[in-house]
Amino acid sequence: MIRHTVLFAWTGDATDAQKKRVATELSRLPGVIPALRGYAMGTDIGVNEGNWDFAVTADFDDLDGYLAYRDDPTHRAIIAEHIAPIIGRRAAVQFQC
Amino acid sequence: MIRHTVLFAWTGDATDAQKKRVATELSRLPGVIPALRGYAMGTDIGVNEGNWDFAVTADFDDLDGYLAYRDDPTHRAIIAEHIAPIIGRRAAVQFQC
Repeated sequence: MIRHTVLFAWTGDATDAQKKRVATELSRLPGVIPALRGYAMGTDIGVNEGNWDFAVTADFDDLDGYLAYRDDPTHRAIIAEHIAPIIGRRAAVQFQC
Repeated sequence: MIRHTVLFAWTGDATDAQKKRVATELSRLPGVIPALRGYAMGTDIGVNEGNWDFAVTADFDDLDGYLAYRDDPTHRAIIAEHIAPIIGRRAAVQFQC
């Protein structure tokens, strides 16, 4: 299995509506991308100082599945329209497990 | 469920042995911390430029489970001895899902 992990710290001027919209939009993807097996995301619960703001984990059977997700047009549109404008910092790792 | 996600970029002078040791040591924790439900980790597979080096995801029934993991003495010792010395950057998010 390939697990894709990505963490975001939003810009200081990102609004609550913008932040919520990211989850709303990404949550449409399991209905659009058949290769997507497990999909979880959420806002940091605030128990640790210095944490970033939002995380997404996505599971795929294999690398082709991940690439289908990464390059999916609906996904790319959500990134361009709703995520990129409020990214302060972004960190990603894909790993095999 | 609480999912803990943490991503690392190692220092430039971290050795392969040091990097491998992190996974070896952390892999002991499911036998030590009963609250740990799902536990996955791995080295970035290298398909995307700009990615960080290593990710860990850990699942718990609730916040108490996560705190038991976070504060577990064996875990803290692994962090101090094997992880902290080679951290270049670290990003973490705990979220409910």
